[in-house]
Amino acid sequence: MEIKAGPILATIDSPADLKKLGREQLNQVCDELRQYIIDIVSVHGGHFAASLGVVELSVALHYVFNTPYDQLVWDVGHQAYGHKILTGRRDNFYTNRKYNGLSGFPKRGESEYDTFGVGHSSTSISAALGMAMAAKYKKEDRKSVAIIGDGSMTAGLAFEGMNHAGVADADMLIILNDNNMSIDPNVGALREYLTDITISPTYNKFKDDIWKALGKLPVGKTFTREMASKLEHSIKSFLSKSSNLFESLNLRYFGPIDGHNITKLVDTLEDLKKIPGPKLLHVLTVKGKGYSLAEKDQTKWHAPGLFDKITGEIYKKKFDTPQPPKYQDVFGQTIVELAEKNDKIFGITPAMPSGSSLKIMMDKMPDRAFDVGICEQHAVTLSAGMATQGMRVFCNIYSSFMQRAYDQVVHDVAIQKLPVVFCLDRAGLVGEDGPTHHGAYDIAYMRCIPNIVVSAPMNEAELRNLMYTSQLEANEYPFVIRYPRGEGVMPEWKTPMVEIPIGKARKLKDGDEIAILSLGHPGNFAASAIRNLKADGLNPAHYDMRFAKPLDEETLHEVFAKYTKIITVEDGTVVGGFGSAILEFMAQHNYSAEVKIMGIPDRIVEHGTPKQLYNECHYDADAIADVVREMMKDKITILG
Amino acid sequence: MEIKAGPILATIDSPADLKKLGREQLNQVCDELRQYIIDIVSVHGGHFAASLGVVELSVALHYVFNTPYDQLVWDVGHQAYGHKILTGRRDNFYTNRKYNGLSGFPKRGESEYDTFGVGHSSTSISAALGMAMAAKYKKEDRKSVAIIGDGSMTAGLAFEGMNHAGVADADMLIILNDNNMSIDPNVGALREYLTDITISPTYNKFKDDIWKALGKLPVGKTFTREMASKLEHSIKSFLSKSSNLFESLNLRYFGPIDGHNITKLVDTLEDLKKIPGPKLLHVLTVKGKGYSLAEKDQTKWHAPGLFDKITGEIYKKKFDTPQPPKYQDVFGQTIVELAEKNDKIFGITPAMPSGSSLKIMMDKMPDRAFDVGICEQHAVTLSAGMATQGMRVFCNIYSSFMQRAYDQVVHDVAIQKLPVVFCLDRAGLVGEDGPTHHGAYDIAYMRCIPNIVVSAPMNEAELRNLMYTSQLEANEYPFVIRYPRGEGVMPEWKTPMVEIPIGKARKLKDGDEIAILSLGHPGNFAASAIRNLKADGLNPAHYDMRFAKPLDEETLHEVFAKYTKIITVEDGTVVGGFGSAILEFMAQHNYSAEVKIMGIPDRIVEHGTPKQLYNECHYDADAIADVVREMMKDKITILG
Repeated sequence: MEIKAGPILATIDSPADLKKLGREQLNQVCDELRQYIIDIVSVHGGHFAASLGVVELSVALHYVFNTPYDQLVWDVGHQAYGHKILTGRRDNFYTNRKYNGLSGFPKRGESEYDTFGVGHSSTSISAALGMAMAAKYKKEDRKSVAIIGDGSMTAGLAFEGMNHAGVADADMLIILNDNNMSIDPNVGALREYLTDITISPTYNKFKDDIWKALGKLPVGKTFTREMASKLEHSIKSFLSKSSNLFESLNLRYFGPIDGHNITKLVDTLEDLKKIPGPKLLHVLTVKGKGYSLAEKDQTKWHAPGLFDKITGEIYKKKFDTPQPPKYQDVFGQTIVELAEKNDKIFGITPAMPSGSSLKIMMDKMPDRAFDVGICEQHAVTLSAGMATQGMRVFCNIYSSFMQRAYDQVVHDVAIQKLPVVFCLDRAGLVGEDGPTHHGAYDIAYMRCIPNIVVSAPMNEAELRNLMYTSQLEANEYPFVIRYPRGEGVMPEWKTPMVEIPIGKARKLKDGDEIAILSLGHPGNFAASAIRNLKADGLNPAHYDMRFAKPLDEETLHEVFAKYTKIITVEDGTVVGGFGSAILEFMAQHNYSAEVKIMGIPDRIVEHGTPKQLYNECHYDADAIADVVREMMKDKITILG
Repeated sequence: MEIKAGPILATIDSPADLKKLGREQLNQVCDELRQYIIDIVSVHGGHFAASLGVVELSVALHYVFNTPYDQLVWDVGHQAYGHKILTGRRDNFYTNRKYNGLSGFPKRGESEYDTFGVGHSSTSISAALGMAMAAKYKKEDRKSVAIIGDGSMTAGLAFEGMNHAGVADADMLIILNDNNMSIDPNVGALREYLTDITISPTYNKFKDDIWKALGKLPVGKTFTREMASKLEHSIKSFLSKSSNLFESLNLRYFGPIDGHNITKLVDTLEDLKKIPGPKLLHVLTVKGKGYSLAEKDQTKWHAPGLFDKITGEIYKKKFDTPQPPKYQDVFGQTIVELAEKNDKIFGITPAMPSGSSLKIMMDKMPDRAFDVGICEQHAVTLSAGMATQGMRVFCNIYSSFMQRAYDQVVHDVAIQKLPVVFCLDRAGLVGEDGPTHHGAYDIAYMRCIPNIVVSAPMNEAELRNLMYTSQLEANEYPFVIRYPRGEGVMPEWKTPMVEIPIGKARKLKDGDEIAILSLGHPGNFAASAIRNLKADGLNPAHYDMRFAKPLDEETLHEVFAKYTKIITVEDGTVVGGFGSAILEFMAQHNYSAEVKIMGIPDRIVEHGTPKQLYNECHYDADAIADVVREMMKDKITILG
C-alpha cells in the first residue's frame, strides 16, 4: 500500500515551497507532517515519539530561517524526521533506516540541509558555535541554530559548549526542546530546575512582576523615596546578576513557550532572528504529541517497532518454541540475582534504564541501581569513587557511548586498578542505528589500557558466568564484558553460574590443520560455519577465546603447536582488536602461521539489518566457511 | 643543604598532630608550610603556585575534618603539596616527582590520605559523590569533600557531577577554589559569572540586603499591607527559585570567603560539617600566595623549574652551542607561518596556551587562535563545526588529555571525514608528571578509527612538513600529528616546508638482514643505536615510517622482501600500536619474519625523568642496540 502525503505536504519538495505558504496554512502542514510520520513509521519502523514532539518546531524553523544557508544542527537527530521530510526526502522517507536507504539521523552526505552528522547526544551547541564563529570570521550573515533536548543538556559537552558560547560573541541560537525525557524520563538537578522555572506561575512571570512592581513603588510617609530607591537598587542589581542558570552563562534566555503553537513559534523565531549574540529559547514540547498512546508511554513509543496505527497494537513476532532472550535482559536479570547475594553490588546506567534492562534492578533495588542521566563520564568516575569504598559497581554503557568516558576508564579506573565492571551493551554492529552507534572500536581502545580485563561472552550462559566472575572478591581488575544488541542463542538461558578463571579460553572442538579462534557472539557464526564445512571434508578446530585480554597463553601455545592455519573472528574492528592480540602473541613467541583476521573492516559501516551488515562485512557463517575453504583449498582438491 | 621544616611543622607527622594545636597557632603552621614548600620546590622542582594558594585551605581541612576517615579529593592534585606534607610525607617530600620518589599528585598507593588518584582535571566531584553515596549506603557518618578549582569547573565532567550531586541526597561538600586561573588565565562564561558574583558589593550581599529589606517593609498609607505582601511574595519566590547557578543545580551555595583567612576558613568548615546534603563553598584564593613574584606572574610560576628563592631567578641551563627547540615551540612558530599564508587556518587549545605554545599565534592572530578552557570535548566538536565551513583547524591537545575527547574524534570528526588537524603534544612518556600524563595510548586508540591519518615526526623538520601537509587542500582526512614533550634534535629547525605524500615512509639507510622500523622521535634512539652497532659489525637498515596509519605498503613490501628480522620502535604502548600495525600488514600479506616490538610496556609506568623511563621501558638507544645484538647473536658469534 502506497503511503500518500497530505495535499499540502505533497507540494513541499523543499523549504522554499514551505515558505510560499501563508501562516494560516501552517497548522495544516503540521497535521499532515505528523500524520505522514505516523503512517510511515507504523509500517516501516524507526524512532517515533521524538519526531512527533517537534513537528511544529521543524515547520517553524524551516519557515523562518533561510535553510540551508542558515544552518540547523539537530542534537542526537532521531527527532529530525520532520526536517528530513520537509527537505526533499519525503518520497523516499519510507527507506529510512533500511539498508542503502536514508539514515535515521541527519547525515552530511545525505543532504545539504543536514549540516552536521549526529547520533550521540549533546554535540549540537559546540558544532553550531563552530559554524557561527566561522560565519563571523568569513563575514557571512548566516544563522546557526542548535536544537537540543533537555536530556542532552545533562551531558558535560553541552555545558562546555554553553560556557564558550556565552563569551564567543557569535550569532547563535540554542533551542532547548524541553520534553522532560531522555529515552527514559530525564533525571538530575537540571531537570528539576527546568521544571521549577516552567511551572505556573512561572519563573519569568515572577521576574516580570518584580520589574513591574519596582516601577510602581508607591512612596509616602512611611515608605520614603530613599527607602524605595535603596530597595529598587538592590533588587535590580540582583536581578541583572542572577537571572537564571543560562543567563549566568551569559546566554540571553527566552521562554518558556509552547512548542506546539506554530504561530507563537514563528513569531518568536522571527524576533530572535534579529537579536545578535548567543541566546537560548526554552520550548516546551510533548514527546509523542498527537499520538495519544505515545504521549502516555513515551519510553515505550520512543522506537516502538512496527504497529497498527489505528489500534496502537505493537506487532511482535510469534513463535511456536521458546526463543533466546536479549542479552540485555540476561544482564538485567542476572545483576539482580547477583546483587541479592552480594550486597556490595551497585548498578549504574547513564540514561539507558530500558535499553540496558538495568531497569529490572532499579525497580527491585532502587537504592542500589541508578540512572544518572546522559553523562557517561560521570557514570564512570562515580563508579570509581564507589569502588574505592569497596563497592562492586556494574556500570552499563553502550559500546559506542563508552567512547565518551574513555579518559575516565584510563585515568580513574585502570590506572588505579579499581575493580569496576563495565558491561558494554550494543557492542559490534548494531544494525539500523548505523555508524554512530556501531560498537566497533571497544576491543581495540580497551585492550591497549593496562590492568584491564576485556571479555566477550559467546552466549547467555557465558555472559552470566563472566558477570559472576567479575564480582567475586578474587577479581581485582577493571573488567569489561561486551555483548551485542539483540538476542542470544539459548532459550533456556538461566544456567547455574560458575567462575571462569580470568583469561581462560574454552576449547569447543579439536580439528585438523586449521583452527578458528573466536571472541564473543560471532563464535556462533563460526560454529555454524564448521557444521557446514563437514560436507567439504574440512574439520577446523574451534576455540571460544572469551578474553581479548589477558590472552590464554597456555591454550595459544597448544594452538600454535598444532595448527598452521588460523582464523580469528570478532565483532569489532580488525585494526588493533582481538586478531591483533593474537598476532602480538605470535610475534612475542616467534610463531609463524597463516592468519586471517575477520571482523569489522577499517571503514565506516553504514546502517542495515545486522544480518545484512555481517554479510557485507564478511564475517557471518558463510564468510567464515568461505575463508576456511580458501585457506584449505589444496586440501579440498585432494579430497575431491 | 638539608631543608628543615619550621618548629611547629616539624612536629606534625599526621593530621592528629595538627589537631592538637590551638587555633591561634594555625597562622604559624601556614607560614611554615608555605615556607617549606618554597624551600623544597626551589631546590627540587615541581608545581609551585597552586600549592601556595591553598596552604590555609589544606591546614583548615585537616584541622576540621577527621581525615582519612573523612575523605578529601583534590582535583588535578598539583595543589596538594601542603596536604602531602601534613599527612606524613614531610620528610621525604624532597623526593617529590623524582624516580621512585613521591608522586607529584595524590595517589592511592602512596597514602591512605590520598583517597583518589588524580592528575587530569574535574574528576573530584564525581569521585567524592561516589564515596558519599557509598558511605550513605553503608550508614557511615563519613564526610566527602571535593576541592576543585574554577578552571576545572569548566570541564563538562564537573557539571555532570554537580547535576547528579544536586539530587543524590548524599552528604558532600564541594569547595570551589576560585583563583581565576587554569595554568593560564581561566576563560569562559562561568569565569565571568564567578567574577560577577564575587566583586564587591557582592552578589550575596545583595541577596542578604533584599531578604533583610523584606523583613522591614514599612507599611503605611501609601504602601499598604496588601501591596507589601504581594511584593514580598514575588521577591521571595524569585529568590528561592533563582538564587545562583549552583543553587539552580540544587547545591546550597556558601561564600565567597577569603581563602587566606585561616580563622574564617576553620569556622566556616566547622559550620558546614554539620549541614547535611550537597553544598558548595566558594573560596577565593590567590595562586602563588605569599611568593610575590608568583602572585604577579602565575602562569610562569605554575611550575617554574628550579629557582633562587631569594632573588626569584629561575635557573636555565646554559649552553655554548645552539640547542634544539622544544617541539611545542616548533608547533607554535610553524602554525603562525602557515596561517599567514592560509587564511583558513585556526588554532584551538583547551587551556594550554603556554604549554602548547599556541600562545604565539593567540598573541599574533587573536581572531584565529583561541583558548576554550579545560574542555577537550568541546574543543574537538567546535573544530568539527568549523571544519564543516571549510576552515582548517589545528586543535592542539596533550595526548593523554585527548582521551577526554575520544568520542568527539570518532563521532564528530572521523565518521564525517572532516579534515581537522590534531596536534597531540606530550605524546609518549612525559617524565615527571607520571602515569596520568603519559601519552601512551594514542597510537592504539587513534589507529583503530577509520578515515584518520596518524603520524609522528622524527624531528623538527618532519613536524613542520607534517603540519604543512595536513593543511593542504589536497588533504581530506582528519590528521593526527603526535610529538613528545621537550626538545627535538635540530638546533637549525626552521627548514623550508615540503609536502609529504600521506602514508609515505623515509628510508634512512639500507642494511643487512635486520631492519628497524621506527615511528616518531624514538627514530633518533634507533639512529644512535645503529651508530653504536657498527663496532659489532652489525648493520641494521632504518626506516622512519612517519605514519602509523596509513602504512607505506610499498616500502613494507620492500622491507619484508629484503629483511628477515624486524624491530619496531615507538613511543607508545606495545599493545595495538604501530608495531601491531606492522604485524597486521604481515598477516594480510602472509609475510613471516622475526619481529620484536619495542615501546611502552603494557603496565602503568610511574614517574621519573624521560631518560630514566625510556631506559626502564627498554626502548632507548642502548635497549635497541641490545635487541639487535640478541636477534643477530649468531652473526656476532660468526664475526667474533
